[in-house]
Amino acid sequence: MSKEKNAFQKFRKKTYIVIYGTNTFAGKAFDLVLLGVIVLSILLTMMETVKSFEENTTFHDIRIGLEWGITIFFTIEYLLRIISINKPLKYIFSFYGIIDLIATLPMYLAQVFAGSGVLSIVRSLRLLRLFKVLNHPKFTGQSTQLRDAMIASKGKILVFIYFVLISTVLIGSIMYVVEGRENGFTSIPTSIYWTIVTLTTVGYGDISPVTPLGQFLASLVMILGYGVIAVPTGIVSAELAKADQKLAIIEKNPCADCGAEDHQENAKFCHNCGNNLLDD
Amino acid sequence: MSKEKNAFQKFRKKTYIVIYGTNTFAGKAFDLVLLGVIVLSILLTMMETVKSFEENTTFHDIRIGLEWGITIFFTIEYLLRIISINKPLKYIFSFYGIIDLIATLPMYLAQVFAGSGVLSIVRSLRLLRLFKVLNHPKFTGQSTQLRDAMIASKGKILVFIYFVLISTVLIGSIMYVVEGRENGFTSIPTSIYWTIVTLTTVGYGDISPVTPLGQFLASLVMILGYGVIAVPTGIVSAELAKADQKLAIIEKNPCADCGAEDHQENAKFCHNCGNNLLDD
Amino acid sequence: MSKEKNAFQKFRKKTYIVIYGTNTFAGKAFDLVLLGVIVLSILLTMMETVKSFEENTTFHDIRIGLEWGITIFFTIEYLLRIISINKPLKYIFSFYGIIDLIATLPMYLAQVFAGSGVLSIVRSLRLLRLFKVLNHPKFTGQSTQLRDAMIASKGKILVFIYFVLISTVLIGSIMYVVEGRENGFTSIPTSIYWTIVTLTTVGYGDISPVTPLGQFLASLVMILGYGVIAVPTGIVSAELAKADQKLAIIEKNPCADCGAEDHQENAKFCHNCGNNLLDD
Amino acid sequence: MSKEKNAFQKFRKKTYIVIYGTNTFAGKAFDLVLLGVIVLSILLTMMETVKSFEENTTFHDIRIGLEWGITIFFTIEYLLRIISINKPLKYIFSFYGIIDLIATLPMYLAQVFAGSGVLSIVRSLRLLRLFKVLNHPKFTGQSTQLRDAMIASKGKILVFIYFVLISTVLIGSIMYVVEGRENGFTSIPTSIYWTIVTLTTVGYGDISPVTPLGQFLASLVMILGYGVIAVPTGIVSAELAKADQKLAIIEKNPCADCGAEDHQENAKFCHNCGNNLLDD
Repeated sequence: MSKEKNAFQKFRKKTYIVIYGTNTFAGKAFDLVLLGVIVLSILLTMMETVKSFEENTTFHDIRIGLEWGITIFFTIEYLLRIISINKPLKYIFSFYGIIDLIATLPMYLAQVFAGSGVLSIVRSLRLLRLFKVLNHPKFTGQSTQLRDAMIASKGKILVFIYFVLISTVLIGSIMYVVEGRENGFTSIPTSIYWTIVTLTTVGYGDISPVTPLGQFLASLVMILGYGVIAVPTGIVSAELAKADQKLAIIEKNPCADCGAEDHQENAKFCHNCGNNLLDD
Repeated sequence: MSKEKNAFQKFRKKTYIVIYGTNTFAGKAFDLVLLGVIVLSILLTMMETVKSFEENTTFHDIRIGLEWGITIFFTIEYLLRIISINKPLKYIFSFYGIIDLIATLPMYLAQVFAGSGVLSIVRSLRLLRLFKVLNHPKFTGQSTQLRDAMIASKGKILVFIYFVLISTVLIGSIMYVVEGRENGFTSIPTSIYWTIVTLTTVGYGDISPVTPLGQFLASLVMILGYGVIAVPTGIVSAELAKADQKLAIIEKNPCADCGAEDHQENAKFCHNCGNNLLDD
Repeated sequence: MSKEKNAFQKFRKKTYIVIYGTNTFAGKAFDLVLLGVIVLSILLTMMETVKSFEENTTFHDIRIGLEWGITIFFTIEYLLRIISINKPLKYIFSFYGIIDLIATLPMYLAQVFAGSGVLSIVRSLRLLRLFKVLNHPKFTGQSTQLRDAMIASKGKILVFIYFVLISTVLIGSIMYVVEGRENGFTSIPTSIYWTIVTLTTVGYGDISPVTPLGQFLASLVMILGYGVIAVPTGIVSAELAKADQKLAIIEKNPCADCGAEDHQENAKFCHNCGNNLLDD
Repeated sequence: MSKEKNAFQKFRKKTYIVIYGTNTFAGKAFDLVLLGVIVLSILLTMMETVKSFEENTTFHDIRIGLEWGITIFFTIEYLLRIISINKPLKYIFSFYGIIDLIATLPMYLAQVFAGSGVLSIVRSLRLLRLFKVLNHPKFTGQSTQLRDAMIASKGKILVFIYFVLISTVLIGSIMYVVEGRENGFTSIPTSIYWTIVTLTTVGYGDISPVTPLGQFLASLVMILGYGVIAVPTGIVSAELAKADQKLAIIEKNPCADCGAEDHQENAKFCHNCGNNLLDD
C-alpha cells in the first residue's frame, strides 16, 4: 500500500509539473493545448449567438458535441488541479480557482436553466492566466513596466475622474434644461450619458443638440473635452517616461573608485575620476 | 449672562471644529454624512426627471419627503456655518458660501416658481469642497501636481485655442459655401458647430458632408484634427513630465551643513553654502 | 510748401505709430478697436446666413448699415496703412497686405456679384495679426515654443502622413470590395473618406460596415487607428518636452571659474568647484 | 559576339543605375516619372469606381487607353528590373518583386476575369519603395527614428492589445445580455464590434445602447476607454522622448584624443580612453 501511495505521489508531482509548470516541454504543450481549447470554447459561444449559424442544425449538433468535449476536458483539468496542488483549499478560493470552476459549469447548468450558456464567456478570463505562455523575459519586463506605470498613475487618474464626474452632472443638467425632452435629452441621467459620450469624443449621434444654444454649449463642452482628454494621456506618458529613466539609471554601472554612478552602457573609464571601469 | 455667553462661545467653537475641521472624528463623520446627503439629493433630482419614476406616486411622495428633509438639513448647516465662523460676511460672499446658500433654496423657491427644482443640481458643486474628505497626503500631492501642470499649461493652451477658433470660423464658412443649406450646413454658425464636432473627433453624424468636394475637404480637416488633437496632449504631457522631474530633484541629496535640498545627482559642492557634499 | 510736406511727414509718422505700433496707448487702443470691429464683422457675416435673422427686415437693415460702416473703416485703415509705411509695395503684396485688401472688398463686390458677402469671412484671418494685442512676453514665449515644437515635428509628421495616406488607399479599396455599393461604400474615394473618418476616430456613422466581414475588418482598422493616433501625439509631446529641457539648460548659469554649466536657478555656489556664483 | 555581349553588359549596367539608383540625374528622373505613373494609375482605378465618371463613355475610352499604356510601361519596367539585376531570382521572390509583378497584371487578367481591375490598387504599395525619392538625409533620419520608436514600443503594445481583446470579449458579452437582439446587439460578435467602436472612441452610432442599464454600462466603458486610449499614446511618447535623448547624447562633446563622441554634459574624462576632456 505504501507503494501505491508512492505511485500516487509520483503521479501528483508529474501532473503538477505539467499543469502548473511552464519550463518543461509537457508543461508548455499543455498550456498551448489549454489556450487552444479556451479560444475554441469562446468562438463556439460567440457563434451560438449568431442566428444564421444556430438555425443550421448541423452546426448546432457539432457545437453541442464540442461543448460537451470541452466541458469534460475542463472538469478533468479542474479536478487534477485540485489533486496535484499542495494547498487545494487556497487554490479553490483563489481568483483563478473560482474562474476555473465557473468555466466547467455552463453545460451542466444548461440542463437545468435555459440560457446559462452565456456563462461560457467567463472562460475568456482564463486567458489572463495563460499570459504566462508568452513567458519571454522581454514580455514580462514590458508588462511589469506597464503595470507599474498604471499603478503609479492611479492617484492622479482618480482625482481626475472625480472632477470629470462632477462636471458631467453639471453639464448634463444644464443641457437637460436647455434642450429638453423633445430633443432627446429625456432626463438628467440621459443627459449625463450624452455628456460622457461627448467628453470622451465617442459621439454616437443617437442624441445630439438641436437648438442653437444647445449646439453652442456642446461646442464649449467639446473644446473642454479636448483639454480633458489630454490629462490621462499626459499622466500615463509622464509615468512611462519616468519608468524608462529609472530603468536607464539602474543599468548604469557605478565606478569602484569614486562611486560616480551615471556612466553610459559602453563607458570604459569613469567620467569623474578617470578610473578604468573594465578593471573592476 | 456672561456664563451664557461663554456657553455660546463654547458651542460655536465646537460647531466650528465639527463643520469646518477634518482632523477630529466628529469632523470626519460630519463630512461623510454631508457627502452622503449631497449624493442622495443629486440622485433624487436626477430621478425626478425620469418619467417612469415621477409618474409613480409612491416614489413622488417619498421624494418630496426626502427633499424637505435635505432642505432642512442644509438650512441648519448653513446657519451653523455662519454662526460658528469668525468672519461670517467673508464666508457668505465666498464661492462656497454662495453655493451653500443656493443649495438650500430649491424647495423654498419651488413653492413660488414651478420647475426651480432643477436648481438642486448646483448642489453637486458642494462636492468640490468635500474633496478634503479624501484628505490623504498622497491624494493632495497628486492633485496639487495636476493643478500646477494645468496652470503651467494655461498659456500654451490659450494660444492654441485662439488659433483653433480662427480655423473653425474659416473652415466652417468654406464648408457652408461648399455643402450648402440643403446638406445640413444651414448657416455658418451651424457649420462652425460641425467643424468643432469634427476637429475634436467627436463626430455625431447629425451633420456630415454629402458632396464629393465636401467629403474631400472634411478628410483634410480630419487629418488636420489629428495633428491638432496632439497639441494639448503634448502640452500637458510635457508639463507633467517636468513636474515629475522637479519633484525628483527636490527629493535628492540634502546638504549636511545648511540643509539645502535640491542638489543634482552629481553635485560635489552645496549650491547654497559651498560645503563639500562628498565629505558627508 | 516745405512746411506742408513736413506736416504730412509728421502725420505719417504719428499714423504709423498708432496703426503699426503696440507700445503707445493710442497704438494699443487702435488695436483693440480694430479687434472689436473685426469680431463684429465676423458675427454679422455669420448671422447673415441664419435664416430667422435674415428674414427679419429690421435686422437686415441694421446689418447693411453696419457692414457699410465697417467697410468704410477698413478702407480708410487700408489707405492709411499704405500711406504711413515706408515701403508701401512690400506691404501691399505681403500676406497681411492682401488679407487687408480683401477685407475691404465684400460690400463693393456685392454691388456687382450677388453672394460675395461670404468673402467677409476672410476678415477672420486679420485676427492672426492681432495676436500681438496679447503682446505679453509670457504669451509670446509660449507661442514661440509651440511654433518651434511644431516646426521640429514637421519632418516626422510628413513621413507619418505619407504612410497613413497609402494605408487609407489600401484599406479603402479593400472595404469597397468587401462591403460594396449597396452598403454605402459607393466608390473607392467614398471608401477612402470612410477610412479617414474611422482612422481619425471621428466616426460620423453616415457610412458604416454592415457585413460581418466588413465589421471585422473595420475593427482591425480601429485598433490600428489606436496605435496610429498615438504617433502624432507622441511626436508633439516629445518635441515639447525637448523644448522645455532646452529652455531649462539655457537658463542655467555657467560658473566663471570652472565652466560647469548645469546649475539650478537658485544656486549660489558652483556644484563642481565650489566657486561663489553670485560674485561673477 | 564578345562585343555584342559587352554592349549588353553596358546596357544592363546603365539600366541598373537608372532603375535602381537614385544618385544620378537619370535615376532621379526615372523615380519621379514612375511616381507620377503610379499615382495616375491609382487615380484611374479610383475614378473607375465612381458611377458618374464610368457612365461617361469618353472618360471610359480614355481610361482604357491610359490603363494599357500604364500596363505596358510597368511590364517593360518589370522585365528591365529582372534583366539588369545580378540576382534576378532573389528580386522576383522579394516583397517588392511580387508587388511589381502584380502591378503589371490587372489589365491582362481583366481580359479573362471581369472585375479584376480592382487589383490595380495593389500598385499603391509600390509607393512604399518610392519613399526613397524623398531621399533627403533629414527625412531618412526622421523615419528611422519613428520606425525605431515603433519597434521599441511593439512589446508593450502587444501586451496592451492582449488585455484589450480580452476586455472586448467580456464587455461585448455583457452588453449582448443587457441590451439584447431587439436593440441592435444581435450577437456577441456584433456586440464586440460595438465595444471596439466605443473603446476606440470612433462611435459610429449604428448601434448604441437604449436601455438605462446599457447606457450606464456604456458610460463606464467610455470612461475606461479614456484611460485605455492614453496607454498606446503614452508608450509611443515615452519611446520618442527616449530616442531624442539618445540622439542628444550622441551629438555632444567629442574627445580630442580618441574621437569618442557620446559623453555626458558634465564628463571630465573620456569614457573610452581616459583622456582629460577639460584640457581640450
